[in-house]
Amino acid sequence: MIRIGFDIGGTNIKAGIVDKESNILVKRNIPFPKGQGYQKTVEVLEELVYSMLIEGANTFDDIEAIGIAVPGSIDPSGEIVINAHNLGFHNVPLKAALSEKFRQIPIFLANDANAAALAELYAGAFKGCNTAVLLTLGTGVGGGLILGGKMFNGGMGHGVELGHIILMQNGPLCTCGNRGCVETFCSATWLIKQGVEVVKSGKNSVISAKVKGDDKRVNAKIVLDSAKEGDPEALLIFNQYMDYLSSAIASIAVLLDPETIAIGGGVSLAGAFLFERLNDMVEEKSFFKYRHKIVPAIMQNDAGIVGAAQLLDNR
Amino acid sequence: MIRIGFDIGGTNIKAGIVDKESNILVKRNIPFPKGQGYQKTVEVLEELVYSMLIEGANTFDDIEAIGIAVPGSIDPSGEIVINAHNLGFHNVPLKAALSEKFRQIPIFLANDANAAALAELYAGAFKGCNTAVLLTLGTGVGGGLILGGKMFNGGMGHGVELGHIILMQNGPLCTCGNRGCVETFCSATWLIKQGVEVVKSGKNSVISAKVKGDDKRVNAKIVLDSAKEGDPEALLIFNQYMDYLSSAIASIAVLLDPETIAIGGGVSLAGAFLFERLNDMVEEKSFFKYRHKIVPAIMQNDAGIVGAAQLLDNR
Repeated sequence: MIRIGFDIGGTNIKAGIVDKESNILVKRNIPFPKGQGYQKTVEVLEELVYSMLIEGANTFDDIEAIGIAVPGSIDPSGEIVINAHNLGFHNVPLKAALSEKFRQIPIFLANDANAAALAELYAGAFKGCNTAVLLTLGTGVGGGLILGGKMFNGGMGHGVELGHIILMQNGPLCTCGNRGCVETFCSATWLIKQGVEVVKSGKNSVISAKVKGDDKRVNAKIVLDSAKEGDPEALLIFNQYMDYLSSAIASIAVLLDPETIAIGGGVSLAGAFLFERLNDMVEEKSFFKYRHKIVPAIMQNDAGIVGAAQLLDNR
Repeated sequence: MIRIGFDIGGTNIKAGIVDKESNILVKRNIPFPKGQGYQKTVEVLEELVYSMLIEGANTFDDIEAIGIAVPGSIDPSGEIVINAHNLGFHNVPLKAALSEKFRQIPIFLANDANAAALAELYAGAFKGCNTAVLLTLGTGVGGGLILGGKMFNGGMGHGVELGHIILMQNGPLCTCGNRGCVETFCSATWLIKQGVEVVKSGKNSVISAKVKGDDKRVNAKIVLDSAKEGDPEALLIFNQYMDYLSSAIASIAVLLDPETIAIGGGVSLAGAFLFERLNDMVEEKSFFKYRHKIVPAIMQNDAGIVGAAQLLDNR
């Protein structure tokens, strides 16, 4: 028996045939049919199922379940994509539309960050955990929770929004309309903005050298790499970022006392340079004063496919 | 069959015989034997059990379980009071000591805020909830979580510390050694401090009139009552307090999306004046933009007894 997992993003649709043990047997990555309506997406998903079945030498009857991860909010009943801005999906009955194509196969929808947390539970950093936190640091800040050994989608089914915990009362405006959210300080976007400021300032800095003075080329990796190389301007940014990030994690840690906290997204690729400092700072800031286990997420690009495929086991 | 619940505080020990439906059948309230060592406390608890059995016309064999709520931290195995500063208990083997007196009766320890959350679940504001948050606003800020329909004592068993979520990065020093914790802004202590400032300033204010100019007589109720009466100085304090409190609750709400949030402690007695505003502000600040259910805690002074007694059912 096999499961099919889809991870729909604003640029690409990733798809895979996944077995019960979370091995990806067949994998695909094709462009998302932007601006063509959700019906077109459903057609693409249907074609992907049949072509993957052929490649995997599986039959239709082998499919135990189909799961779909989307970058947005799902209604509490798990049937409708309420809002997925990057997909242009608003109140889209995605489950019903796919169920018409695949009658009798259980179909599950999930937010992509939640699915990623589930993937870590079954195959990654959260194996064997009852309580775990995934924090994804990218353009924004997202994440997912494992509570009671299961993916947690909010007590009322609205989801979890780790990026919108308030870190600074009356702080800078967040995209959500509130002020001082974790997302305004802990995203890769914040790192890039600070790096751009350094380049624009004309100060002597490894960041400026790496982008040859072109502030449009600044990315989070360049800022972090420059800090790693000891550049004083980049280190100022890095130290401030660590201060914010450790506070955000300490806040979640004192509320949930999790067994493992995993960091996903591009920022998590900074390695020991970031994680050693982060573990030290969270230990110091956490009320519990023990060393929380803070590690890089393992599943990264496959997280959505695997998590979506395993939604069957999360019921 | 009956359960016995103890709520040990730095001033009083409350005790009760509680039935399976959380009715308190017999209740006691006696002074805590301060500074006399935990063995003395154990003797007092033993005497209370026997005298309550007589009053309730119960026998020793009727006791299904004994639960004890303490204002402090319990080790993850639930046997030792690691720290309960107000009791002078540090690494006290309270379960073993009581088990010697009551062999064959299951004995449970819990943090008092956790026990209070459990009491709300069985008999109060959280009846029927799977996910709920109790926030207790007093000298400090504490609280408890209900997750999966059970009392949650932290994923690693260290407890939950709602008062030490960081609300203001690099804010004022907290008693815990960290900066900007919820407790530094949302406790009754904060309200009192602001009220004292008003009295000391000599400004014309209802607060000053109520305490006849004696700043030592300021308490949280006086500040809140003065705001209710429309005193501009007290309203400034109240508005600022609501801003902090709504941010703290919004942070917890976006992480857990709880069915109910209950507020305990003296501040919660301020009634609709506080709760209507609080519900409005949290709705505005929460990413989910729906009206969270924020209500006063119901169990109040009986919370510890009932919650401790029902620890048996929380295994």
